[in-house]
Amino acid sequence: MSELVSATYGVHSEVGQLRKVLVCAPGLAHRRLTPTNADALLFDDVMWVENAQHDHAAFVASLRSNGVDVVELHDLLAETMAIPAAKDWLLSRKIVPNEVGLGLVDDTLAFLDSLEPRMLADYLIGGLATSDLPDEYRNPYLSLARETTGVGEYLMPPLPNTLYTRDTTCWLYGGVTLNPLYWGARKAETLLMKAIYLHHPDYVGSTVWWGDPEQQWGQSSLEGGDIMPVGNGVVLMGMSERTSRQAITQVAAALFESGAAEQIVVAGMPKLRAAMHLDTVFTFADRDIVTLYPRIVDEVHTFTLRPATALRSRGSGPQSLARSSTSPRPGASAGTLDVTDEGSTPFTDVVARALGLPALNVIATGGDAYASERQQWDSGNNAVALRPGVVYTYDRNTQTNDLLTRAGVEVIPIVGAELGRGRGGGHCMTCPIIRDPVAF
Amino acid sequence: MSELVSATYGVHSEVGQLRKVLVCAPGLAHRRLTPTNADALLFDDVMWVENAQHDHAAFVASLRSNGVDVVELHDLLAETMAIPAAKDWLLSRKIVPNEVGLGLVDDTLAFLDSLEPRMLADYLIGGLATSDLPDEYRNPYLSLARETTGVGEYLMPPLPNTLYTRDTTCWLYGGVTLNPLYWGARKAETLLMKAIYLHHPDYVGSTVWWGDPEQQWGQSSLEGGDIMPVGNGVVLMGMSERTSRQAITQVAAALFESGAAEQIVVAGMPKLRAAMHLDTVFTFADRDIVTLYPRIVDEVHTFTLRPATALRSRGSGPQSLARSSTSPRPGASAGTLDVTDEGSTPFTDVVARALGLPALNVIATGGDAYASERQQWDSGNNAVALRPGVVYTYDRNTQTNDLLTRAGVEVIPIVGAELGRGRGGGHCMTCPIIRDPVAF
Amino acid sequence: MSELVSATYGVHSEVGQLRKVLVCAPGLAHRRLTPTNADALLFDDVMWVENAQHDHAAFVASLRSNGVDVVELHDLLAETMAIPAAKDWLLSRKIVPNEVGLGLVDDTLAFLDSLEPRMLADYLIGGLATSDLPDEYRNPYLSLARETTGVGEYLMPPLPNTLYTRDTTCWLYGGVTLNPLYWGARKAETLLMKAIYLHHPDYVGSTVWWGDPEQQWGQSSLEGGDIMPVGNGVVLMGMSERTSRQAITQVAAALFESGAAEQIVVAGMPKLRAAMHLDTVFTFADRDIVTLYPRIVDEVHTFTLRPATALRSRGSGPQSLARSSTSPRPGASAGTLDVTDEGSTPFTDVVARALGLPALNVIATGGDAYASERQQWDSGNNAVALRPGVVYTYDRNTQTNDLLTRAGVEVIPIVGAELGRGRGGGHCMTCPIIRDPVAF
Amino acid sequence: MSELVSATYGVHSEVGQLRKVLVCAPGLAHRRLTPTNADALLFDDVMWVENAQHDHAAFVASLRSNGVDVVELHDLLAETMAIPAAKDWLLSRKIVPNEVGLGLVDDTLAFLDSLEPRMLADYLIGGLATSDLPDEYRNPYLSLARETTGVGEYLMPPLPNTLYTRDTTCWLYGGVTLNPLYWGARKAETLLMKAIYLHHPDYVGSTVWWGDPEQQWGQSSLEGGDIMPVGNGVVLMGMSERTSRQAITQVAAALFESGAAEQIVVAGMPKLRAAMHLDTVFTFADRDIVTLYPRIVDEVHTFTLRPATALRSRGSGPQSLARSSTSPRPGASAGTLDVTDEGSTPFTDVVARALGLPALNVIATGGDAYASERQQWDSGNNAVALRPGVVYTYDRNTQTNDLLTRAGVEVIPIVGAELGRGRGGGHCMTCPIIRDPVAF
Repeated sequence: MSELVSATYGVHSEVGQLRKVLVCAPGLAHRRLTPTNADALLFDDVMWVENAQHDHAAFVASLRSNGVDVVELHDLLAETMAIPAAKDWLLSRKIVPNEVGLGLVDDTLAFLDSLEPRMLADYLIGGLATSDLPDEYRNPYLSLARETTGVGEYLMPPLPNTLYTRDTTCWLYGGVTLNPLYWGARKAETLLMKAIYLHHPDYVGSTVWWGDPEQQWGQSSLEGGDIMPVGNGVVLMGMSERTSRQAITQVAAALFESGAAEQIVVAGMPKLRAAMHLDTVFTFADRDIVTLYPRIVDEVHTFTLRPATALRSRGSGPQSLARSSTSPRPGASAGTLDVTDEGSTPFTDVVARALGLPALNVIATGGDAYASERQQWDSGNNAVALRPGVVYTYDRNTQTNDLLTRAGVEVIPIVGAELGRGRGGGHCMTCPIIRDPVAF
Repeated sequence: MSELVSATYGVHSEVGQLRKVLVCAPGLAHRRLTPTNADALLFDDVMWVENAQHDHAAFVASLRSNGVDVVELHDLLAETMAIPAAKDWLLSRKIVPNEVGLGLVDDTLAFLDSLEPRMLADYLIGGLATSDLPDEYRNPYLSLARETTGVGEYLMPPLPNTLYTRDTTCWLYGGVTLNPLYWGARKAETLLMKAIYLHHPDYVGSTVWWGDPEQQWGQSSLEGGDIMPVGNGVVLMGMSERTSRQAITQVAAALFESGAAEQIVVAGMPKLRAAMHLDTVFTFADRDIVTLYPRIVDEVHTFTLRPATALRSRGSGPQSLARSSTSPRPGASAGTLDVTDEGSTPFTDVVARALGLPALNVIATGGDAYASERQQWDSGNNAVALRPGVVYTYDRNTQTNDLLTRAGVEVIPIVGAELGRGRGGGHCMTCPIIRDPVAF
Repeated sequence: MSELVSATYGVHSEVGQLRKVLVCAPGLAHRRLTPTNADALLFDDVMWVENAQHDHAAFVASLRSNGVDVVELHDLLAETMAIPAAKDWLLSRKIVPNEVGLGLVDDTLAFLDSLEPRMLADYLIGGLATSDLPDEYRNPYLSLARETTGVGEYLMPPLPNTLYTRDTTCWLYGGVTLNPLYWGARKAETLLMKAIYLHHPDYVGSTVWWGDPEQQWGQSSLEGGDIMPVGNGVVLMGMSERTSRQAITQVAAALFESGAAEQIVVAGMPKLRAAMHLDTVFTFADRDIVTLYPRIVDEVHTFTLRPATALRSRGSGPQSLARSSTSPRPGASAGTLDVTDEGSTPFTDVVARALGLPALNVIATGGDAYASERQQWDSGNNAVALRPGVVYTYDRNTQTNDLLTRAGVEVIPIVGAELGRGRGGGHCMTCPIIRDPVAF
Repeated sequence: MSELVSATYGVHSEVGQLRKVLVCAPGLAHRRLTPTNADALLFDDVMWVENAQHDHAAFVASLRSNGVDVVELHDLLAETMAIPAAKDWLLSRKIVPNEVGLGLVDDTLAFLDSLEPRMLADYLIGGLATSDLPDEYRNPYLSLARETTGVGEYLMPPLPNTLYTRDTTCWLYGGVTLNPLYWGARKAETLLMKAIYLHHPDYVGSTVWWGDPEQQWGQSSLEGGDIMPVGNGVVLMGMSERTSRQAITQVAAALFESGAAEQIVVAGMPKLRAAMHLDTVFTFADRDIVTLYPRIVDEVHTFTLRPATALRSRGSGPQSLARSSTSPRPGASAGTLDVTDEGSTPFTDVVARALGLPALNVIATGGDAYASERQQWDSGNNAVALRPGVVYTYDRNTQTNDLLTRAGVEVIPIVGAELGRGRGGGHCMTCPIIRDPVAF
């Protein structure tokens, strides 16, 4: 199976035909959201979960009807948890005294062990509150958790941001990164993905460029919303609040060492919630068409990273994840990089040059000053391509969608009334696993 | 006409047959909302205005199909502005140096004077940005407004909270209050309503119990979401962040003096955004059925106000608004009140006793701890009755709606995905003008 | 007496010999500050009041030893309250149902009436909590104030920002403005000052250019920290969060009409707490020496206002405050202004030109990037001049003080550990009443 | 040497004679504080560093004049860095790609290697900004750090909270814990302490009960301000925002296993910044006298932990830190605890009972409602004892200090104007290393 993976999995552009994609449906984690905890869980508002599920299912159905193989995270995790070794691997890392507290390990494990794989996956993503423990698994240690509130204490945290599968792992050409996420509220997501990549038969043998949720990453953080393998050996990386230079330079070195990429264009972004990832202000709609929010993109400071000429070292190369493998050492990539400060050259010009295009065709966020600010906020620039010239975006950004349509782009709407409340759109909600290259 | 008003207008209960109601459709004011200014304008999020308009129109259509005479604020204000004296009255109070700045008065007036009444009403509610002024009305003073941002400077402020007509004026039995609202962002709403009550032929001669937007009110503030004329001579008043004891005692005295009410039950509320008004945590669904949010209502400290025995109403009585009338003096009501601190008696018990009921049938917010907090936030307890036992609520609060249905209440849903983003539901969006009494 | 006032009172520069100044010592209002309410009262932290009093007294002693006639607000107000008509005038405006609540007017008045003038002044500035009322003045209405917390409810609000006398009224050449302050927490300060100017024998007959706390000012707000009568017929005005163009243009017109000023230089400031007033980033240390914080001042957009050439209208002129006088109409000044947008010309260049100087000698906030940001915050640029070349500043801004000293300025330190916690320095804490002109 | 340590080091009470204590003087880290970054660095305000140093030095001098052996962290770290193996150990853990970024490791190491030990210690505590690197150590990778701001980018973070040595490590009877701190801004402190305990000759061989900064601790966090070894085999532990039950139960088990303690009294605290640690609302002034803030302490929910009767397991016992030792496994303590929920019994009663006292003599925060809230905020309850009945507290909390004095406690004041701005007092600023037991 692993040969198949290395042979066929990979994302070779931002707009080539999408063939296989990972999504995550709303669920238990979003039923945990309340006005009190939403902020801590990085959501701006609570969600009507049933409607969000309905809207998400329609999005998935549209992808499938367009020939895309859509994989859903709860399903994938349930399949993984049906494998005894995988379940042991994951639970022995999550149900430990540092997480659930001394004295609750055995009972929590016993309860989780009693569950069907699908139910276990629901708790792994949706969180396990102390109040979820049935009577037969409760012991006096629970009183310390002061669960009288019923909502504040977790044995496993709810992970509502799994909805945005884009961020947790990134397929960059033929391999994947297992990202150290920025906020504490999301850090536990990556371990779930490692369990899958390590144990699920469809993913065993995947090439891992960088990252390991079992290590400490310090100031290194990376989120997929900032990372775009645009093709032509180029990867765009937003250097943002959530994606640090400490991570970017390590990933760049890893990609250069293996020959997977030749050039990284770094978008030095202002640190604002409205612009938390590059893909919240800039995405591709066709091989040379981008939709962007000028107020932020105009302030981007651009750098280009290339392999240092001295770099001929073969190095140890990327790791192939296997149950027996030792973990990669953080920062082990020793290769030196060539850093070019692009100064006042506009980001879009640097990108066009890297792709060998004369220029990008830029579709700015539509409407007047009010409307464009509102649409950027509502993920108006967060398009994800089905194939060149065909994108999904939220229905509510009517003016930006009109401009895309007039530029010849086919726009397929996603209902965004509920799904958009965590400030992520179609691009954020999809983690492409197989996408074709495009010619430049 | 004014005899007709005094004879027929009036709200005599919270659940009697609703006959005439004032609403305000979403519009230009909501197109001004952006992530940057939403907070200052008291909205939690921006809105898809077209969809909000669609959902609001459906609510209005349902009311009409149920026989209710629905009046819309833009319409009413346009009709008022078609009366030259009314237009002069209002613009001479809004377009003054203190509001638009010295040097911009004449040109702003000239522009507004050039508009059709409906367009003028749109700007009065939606706000007039400096960038809205056509070239022929622009002069050098505009440069001081530094309108280069295009969104920050207004000659008249946008008033998106007019959506919640409940708050601005309250019909309490046979008369109305013109409320001094708490937040600066809403204060200008009341002057629009005074223009209507003073000049529109359907409202001339209305009895005004209290309030005048042309006066200063200091610590007195009153918002209709806190005020419920439940019948039986009783008015409930939430004493909240937005409705102060300074106002409550004055309104109580005015109602007692005119004999319009005999008893005020004051709900001393915790000062929390989630519980900004009494109607966000407590409304009536039938003559003896209420829906409430226990976590807040259980913390209410209750008082009862009654006319002091010495009070054999002297006073000048209420004013009839007429163009020539002098303004009422603030705080002129000299009558003394009898204040009873209800101590630990539950609010619902005090209300039941005041209504002569053995007890209220209480429907608490539905769902587990997560869901009930979420539904309260989503205006799940903010029902407005069409008639006894028939209420409108947002569709998204499915669990609370189920409980109401099981209690025999007919629930008609309002689509809340957009309308609810300012934290107001059906009760907030309606200002009843004629509602029948119910028997107790 | 009033002839004396008009003949001699007046501030004719920012650095000429200071002869008479109004200050306000820390006191009861600052003992009301707690971590919970400090924010609402515009303080960043609580204060050790005894030490703040000690430090303030040392500042006053230094001023006096340098020949300045220092007037203290509690003293001045106590002297005013000793005049029965003045006491009636003020209490009849403050102790009304809109402020204290219906039913508490008589008892509150009775209590205040029982006090010695100095104690009354203490409560007028320090606030009157419901818990301050002795038993014999308590009645059942107090229960509505829910004073069980003991700290949250006031019959008169505490006014800790009176410490910054600069803001409330401004002597501009031969007359004074009674400023509508921006924040609700400060609005009540101006009425105290009007009581003094109207009734205290030393101030009766003062020329009032503009402003009246008994009127509503809408979007017009003015704070003295933004206003500098620098001499040569010029006034600098910061157009900031707290001082609006609506007010600036009215004051400008009033000064031009009376011939008191010929030119207003408006500093269009970014709206930031760190730069709330012009004098937090820019003050004069000598006739041609200024200390400023470049990061903010470099972003100032400058305008110049001059009398329109058409302006020959005599107008009604300024009012002389007298007990019988009618209030000035807000915005009555009809004169038109000439507005010049100075575009990219630096603020300091426009100021130098207006003063007829070749250039200003600029002393920037001292230290590295960390230290200069910290010192601006600690009022490092908030110098107040005793005479040309001699200024008071806080001791803690050692690096900026060193630079001033090296430029030949004599720096007299004020101990700032406590006094600075409301973000105001020596300039903020002084309201000059008589200051000599300087030659340019 | 290590025998000496294990024989003599240890803290056996909260009020017994203090013999040796660790403090940390203000310095470079506090010169990095600005209004912009103070919040992120957990300070409420910036500090006048020179004065803070002066006040801190006076505190140290007083301790020394009272016979206490005071060790200062910069000194201790400089002595440690003078040991080549220790320097290698620490720098090889701090200067890695995940912290400084790929490409900056070699130059940063080279620069640090060039420094004298004392200067190196200053940077280790005070932070190393990119702008601190001299020209000969700068390379193109630095441009990615966008250091034009000069203040935002660090190669090593500033650690201003080292001022509060209490939190980072705790001597509990004869051993020490190396605490995983709660906030990211403090996590790096513990590694510095481990370098010292592992390498400095005065500390080699110290017994470590629990904790290791080289491991991940998940939801386990522990801060010394919550931990009090009161004597009689009892340790008090505040379960707060910063000290979690996951950590408390592990430390309890470790202490029980080694026989170092017999009983843990857990104070379940509300999660508030004003009450971040137990010692911000409750400290001992004598063997049976405590000073506390009733508003918070009255809300504490108390638990008692005791060794489970089944616990006879010898276990591996505590580790002796040695350079060759393997790290302890997190959560390896398998011992089970007996958890008693004390229900409505007041915290002070449970503590008295645990100490075998009939009751505690309670000195509540002094003054009225305003003053007591202010004094709690100003660390009024944060006393540290020199010996029974003699404590240090901040001078500014005059009312609480008076009450202590009247109760027979000798109060030695610390000047708190600058030192208190990070919300910590004398207890927070001291980490006792040797303190005598007291009899109960």
